[in-house]
Amino acid sequence: MILTVTLNTALDITYRVRGLRPHTSHRVTEVTERPGGKGLNVARVLAALGHEVSVTGFTGGATGRALREQLAHVPGVVDALVPVDGATRRTIAVVDTASGDTTQLNEPGPQIAPHEWAAFQEAYEVLLRSSSAVALCGSLPPGVPVGAYAQLVRTARALAVPVLLDTSGEPLRRGIAARPDIVKPNADELAELTGAHDPAQASRDARRRGAHAVVASLGAEGLLARTPDGDWRAAPPRPVRGNPTGAGDSAVAGLLSGLVERLPWPERLSRAVALSAATVLSPVAGEFDRSAYDGLLGQVSVTRETTAA
Amino acid sequence: MILTVTLNTALDITYRVRGLRPHTSHRVTEVTERPGGKGLNVARVLAALGHEVSVTGFTGGATGRALREQLAHVPGVVDALVPVDGATRRTIAVVDTASGDTTQLNEPGPQIAPHEWAAFQEAYEVLLRSSSAVALCGSLPPGVPVGAYAQLVRTARALAVPVLLDTSGEPLRRGIAARPDIVKPNADELAELTGAHDPAQASRDARRRGAHAVVASLGAEGLLARTPDGDWRAAPPRPVRGNPTGAGDSAVAGLLSGLVERLPWPERLSRAVALSAATVLSPVAGEFDRSAYDGLLGQVSVTRETTAA
Repeated sequence: MILTVTLNTALDITYRVRGLRPHTSHRVTEVTERPGGKGLNVARVLAALGHEVSVTGFTGGATGRALREQLAHVPGVVDALVPVDGATRRTIAVVDTASGDTTQLNEPGPQIAPHEWAAFQEAYEVLLRSSSAVALCGSLPPGVPVGAYAQLVRTARALAVPVLLDTSGEPLRRGIAARPDIVKPNADELAELTGAHDPAQASRDARRRGAHAVVASLGAEGLLARTPDGDWRAAPPRPVRGNPTGAGDSAVAGLLSGLVERLPWPERLSRAVALSAATVLSPVAGEFDRSAYDGLLGQVSVTRETTAA
Repeated sequence: MILTVTLNTALDITYRVRGLRPHTSHRVTEVTERPGGKGLNVARVLAALGHEVSVTGFTGGATGRALREQLAHVPGVVDALVPVDGATRRTIAVVDTASGDTTQLNEPGPQIAPHEWAAFQEAYEVLLRSSSAVALCGSLPPGVPVGAYAQLVRTARALAVPVLLDTSGEPLRRGIAARPDIVKPNADELAELTGAHDPAQASRDARRRGAHAVVASLGAEGLLARTPDGDWRAAPPRPVRGNPTGAGDSAVAGLLSGLVERLPWPERLSRAVALSAATVLSPVAGEFDRSAYDGLLGQVSVTRETTAA
C-alpha cells in the first residue's frame, strides 16, 4: 500500500459565475465539490494507476464529514483520516465564465491541538508499517509545528519507508534537512528555498540540503531531476494548454508509483511528465485524461544531463 | 407561536481577505458561519424580542446539517425545517479588509422535487394551526413553482393566520394577488412590481394589487406604510451608518411582532425602524444592537400622510 499524507485536507468547491466584479453580488450558476488537498489528489491518481492507496491527515466538522462521504465514492482510495475538533477548510475556485480566469479563496484550516498532533503521529506510524512508500503533501494547518514534516520524514526513514516531500516555505526547509528520498519543488519553491533563481543551480543546492533526489517541476518545460543515479530533463513532446490545477500532484503520483515499481529514473520521469500533461489536458480540474496519458507516455523526451561544476 | 418560512435557507459564510483581486489567489484570514436566509434572520430577531418562533423551509445535505447544528444553539428558535435530498445552498460574503467593501457569491439552492414541495405544504399547514402569524421570506429554490407564495398566502388566509410576504420579482407579483396582510418591498422591488419609480405612487399601486398593507423600506429614510388604518412615514432620528445586512429582516420582525401584540400601526412602525437602524449599527452583520434599539425606540419620528389623489 502507498500512503499519502494531507495534514490540511480541503473541501474543494468550484463556482462558475458570469463576470466576477468585486463589491457586487453574484449568482453562482454551477457548484461542484470534491475532496481536496494535494495528498488526496495524489491518491486519486495512484488509485487510477492501479495502486492500493490510503490517505491520512486531519479531518473534522461538517466540511470534514462532507469530504469523507465524497471520498467513500472514490474507487481504490482507503480513508485513514484522523478526526479533529476543528472543521476541515474549504477552498473556493471562482471561475469567471466570461474570461475563463479563476479567482481562488483558501481558508486557513482548523486549529490542531497538541493532543491531536500526537494522535496523528501514532496513527501515521501504524500506517507506515504496511506502506511501501509515503508522500507528505501540502501546507500545514494552524497549530501543527513548523518542523512537522521533518519529524514525519525521520519516522518514515527509521522504518525504511521511502518518503517523498512536496511542500513549500519553512516546512520544506526543515523537512529537507531530515533527508527525504525525493522532494518535488516547483521553480518558485526552489528559489525561495535556495535563493538561486536558476533551477539548474537551485536544484543542486536543494540536493545538498539533504534530499536524496530533487525533482523540480518547471511548468510547461517538464521536470529536472537530480538523483543519486544521475541527472535528467524530461519534457512533453509539445506544449499543452489547459487547466494546470493538480498537474504537480499527478507528477508526484507518477514519481511515487515509479518508485514502488522500482522503475529506473527515466521511466519514472516519463510517467510523471505524461501524467502531468494529461492532467492539464483534462476538462475536469485535477483529473487526468487517460487516453491523453496513454498517448503521451511514449513521447516524453528524457535527456541525460552532464553535471556542470 | 410565530412562524417564519425560508424556502431557500442558506449557510451564510463570511470571509475576510486583505484586498480582493480577481484572477489571483487569496488566503482567507477569518471565516465565520451562521444559519441564514431571510426567514431565519427574522426568527432570530423575534426570539430576541421574547417571542416564541418556529422556522420552516427546506434543508438538506452536509450544509443543511451544519445549518441545523448551528440553529440548535440559537435561543428561542424552534427548528421545524423539512429535509430534502439536495444540499442547502451557501452564500459567501467576501469582506475586503483593505477597502471594507463586500463581494457576494450566492449559490442557487437545491433542486426541490414535486413530492418535497408537497411534503412542505402539509408540514406548513400543520404548523399554521398553532401560529399567531407567519412571514414568508426570500427567494424560491429551483423546482418550487413560481406561484408558491400565492399558494402559501391562501393557505394562511384560509386558516385566518395573518401573513406577511417579503420577496421580489414574479413570486412577489403572484403572491400579492393572493391578498397577504402585509408586503414589505424595498424601493427597487416596488419599482419592479409596479413600474412606478416614485415610492409614494408605487406603494399605492402595490396595495391595489391585493396587499392589505404595504410597508415600503426606503433605506436610510425609513419606512412608508399604506394600511387600512391610514398612511404613515417613519424615520430614524438621524442617519445611521454601518452594515445594512439584515436591516430589512429586522424591520419584518418589528412589523410581525407588532401585529401579534396588536399594536397600532405607528408603534409597529417605530419598532420596525428602530430595529432596522440598530441592525445597521451592530458590529455583527445581521444582529441588532440591543442598547441602540432601546435608545432609538422612543426617537423614531412617525408622521401621518394625507392621501393624495
